[in-house]
Amino acid sequence: MLGNFTFCNPTRLHFGEDSLEQLRSELSRYGKTIQLIYGGGSIKQNGIYDKVVSILRGCGKTVIDDGGVMPNPTYERLLEGAKKARENKADLLLAVGGGSCIDYAKAVSASAYCEGDPWQKYYLDFEEPTCRLIPVGCVLTMVGTGSEMNGGAVITNQEQKLKIGHVFGEELYPKFAILNPRFTMTVPYRQMVAGIYDAFNHICEQYFSGEDDNVSDRLSEALMRSLIDSSRIAVKDPQNYEARSNIMWAATWALNTLIEQGKTTDWEVHMLGQAVGAYTDATHGMTLAAVSLPYYRHILPFGLQKFKRFAVEVFRVETDGKSDEEIANEGLCAMEKWMRELGLAMNLRELGVKEDMIEGIAKATLVMDGGYKTLSHAEIVQILRESL
Amino acid sequence: MLGNFTFCNPTRLHFGEDSLEQLRSELSRYGKTIQLIYGGGSIKQNGIYDKVVSILRGCGKTVIDDGGVMPNPTYERLLEGAKKARENKADLLLAVGGGSCIDYAKAVSASAYCEGDPWQKYYLDFEEPTCRLIPVGCVLTMVGTGSEMNGGAVITNQEQKLKIGHVFGEELYPKFAILNPRFTMTVPYRQMVAGIYDAFNHICEQYFSGEDDNVSDRLSEALMRSLIDSSRIAVKDPQNYEARSNIMWAATWALNTLIEQGKTTDWEVHMLGQAVGAYTDATHGMTLAAVSLPYYRHILPFGLQKFKRFAVEVFRVETDGKSDEEIANEGLCAMEKWMRELGLAMNLRELGVKEDMIEGIAKATLVMDGGYKTLSHAEIVQILRESL
Repeated sequence: MLGNFTFCNPTRLHFGEDSLEQLRSELSRYGKTIQLIYGGGSIKQNGIYDKVVSILRGCGKTVIDDGGVMPNPTYERLLEGAKKARENKADLLLAVGGGSCIDYAKAVSASAYCEGDPWQKYYLDFEEPTCRLIPVGCVLTMVGTGSEMNGGAVITNQEQKLKIGHVFGEELYPKFAILNPRFTMTVPYRQMVAGIYDAFNHICEQYFSGEDDNVSDRLSEALMRSLIDSSRIAVKDPQNYEARSNIMWAATWALNTLIEQGKTTDWEVHMLGQAVGAYTDATHGMTLAAVSLPYYRHILPFGLQKFKRFAVEVFRVETDGKSDEEIANEGLCAMEKWMRELGLAMNLRELGVKEDMIEGIAKATLVMDGGYKTLSHAEIVQILRESL
Repeated sequence: MLGNFTFCNPTRLHFGEDSLEQLRSELSRYGKTIQLIYGGGSIKQNGIYDKVVSILRGCGKTVIDDGGVMPNPTYERLLEGAKKARENKADLLLAVGGGSCIDYAKAVSASAYCEGDPWQKYYLDFEEPTCRLIPVGCVLTMVGTGSEMNGGAVITNQEQKLKIGHVFGEELYPKFAILNPRFTMTVPYRQMVAGIYDAFNHICEQYFSGEDDNVSDRLSEALMRSLIDSSRIAVKDPQNYEARSNIMWAATWALNTLIEQGKTTDWEVHMLGQAVGAYTDATHGMTLAAVSLPYYRHILPFGLQKFKRFAVEVFRVETDGKSDEEIANEGLCAMEKWMRELGLAMNLRELGVKEDMIEGIAKATLVMDGGYKTLSHAEIVQILRESL
């Protein structure tokens, strides 16, 4: 564990089949007005909406409806939500849904009383909030983004064709998060596997950087193995509670800052995926899946020892009589086999990307410098072409 | 991850060679009067005391000296410390040292304004504090107990020959903890390895219980492997910063409630060790080391599959052509080999235990029911005899 760092994660997580019961005690800490944030209405069909509203009403709260948040929440929508929170003097922003809803809630929190334009301040200038913030809580219904226990908030500016994530500080982490694995069983199969891969790739982004053997890397390997094993059960039996609960818990720890401590990180796959997302509105986890293997095969020679370790520790590749390159490549082949078992998007074409969009996506891709190879524009174009 | 649980750990950890610098910003959150808690004076010799006091004075704080806390803090001493905190109206209890100092600070916090007798309330009746609490912060100089990021506070009642741990709730977790791996290099070799084994055994206590393959078990294996690898470097080269920093970080995560979530736990080795500690004042980690193998060999048949998994996942025992029993036993042999490499106490005799103390120690041993076998009094006596 080299370097200096601070770890602080104050989110209170309530986990399990009965965890929604804990919403009552959490609500007692906040004022009367609750802005209820949710997505396209699936929580109304599966009964989660009614359960939450019943608890809110039972606790004597006034509910401000903020439903219909889209999968990639937009800047325009953020401004509407912020206006609503400000005008209604919301005491708590309660997001019920997946990462998009929770990300949006954090952005609303930082924007409601923001002086100046929040897009400029948070997403272009990456400034920290200086205004009053509204507490955020969440009931998680979809696994993957880790937004339930971190400060991340991705917003899409459609006009500028930019999808950017601001990572807020601990004051914007959800104060509480309710994680009921049963709630995640209502999500369609495709969303389930996209979420699993999103979580897996969060770990990859933090793992494939640096050569040091630190605690964070060991924990990363543990979480990756857990996700792989449990996902193989879940794709055959999506109602398997134990598998779904392991996936949910691993996904939270994949992106709550634990496994990034004391090391460098990459995040280039996310930059590629987010650029694709700004052009296609494809599911986030699927955009990551489609570009991952071409990217990792491209950088493998520059991080050979780590890719070898990944093969051995995560996919248990046999090493006898093989070169480091062979072992490392076998690791990525095992990862590809697992990704195909899950039925992930394995190319960009099936996500609606066309040849003539490549140049624009490449230009919209931010270049990170923590990975094994800092990409040139030509390399980004090449990786996107190989992903088509 | 079965069952319902709540995870919340609000301690802010500052880690690294320069982490003491963060003490200034932490101090700004508290009032003027700081009760400075430390042990036998080693921090005066190695310069840590002067560095801390210089920061306290620079921040304009009034320092109430509370030095000389013994390795197993006593009930009498707790009452003195509580009186001191109350009379001086301490605004913060700052522990500089290892687990004993931090445990003591938490107990003082809950006792200063306690109505009634704290020993009776917290250590015999296991009640929660209802009085005003004083915030606790710490500068960790010795690795092992995990007290820097949890609510544990072990106190010894010499008259009653009882050493008991109360696990307080999140309101008594240290508000902040400063972890500088360099500070741990001043600890004598024997204390270093005792601390490493203490941390390792914390993981064992949570791992050797239940048969489910959950995220917690995978994370436990990761932390155990990390501790084993780094300890093998540290015993040959105690000044190796990377190894010492990995040990320090792994030890914190070994006992901050993460790896116990969603599963049952054991803690019988700690009950045996604490009973030995109440009779001998031997170093805590060494008492655990001395009883561990006889205990684990005794319960192995009742938790065979987990001991087999331990052998394979933690010590990479080869499985070809071997029975489950052989694999499981080889795992414990590999653990014994590692413990001998570290130079841990491998029997109770070298800790000062004599045959005629066995009956008393056995009677003082609390019986837990989360492990693979709930021990009878006769079994406790047998394990203690085998540990002699």
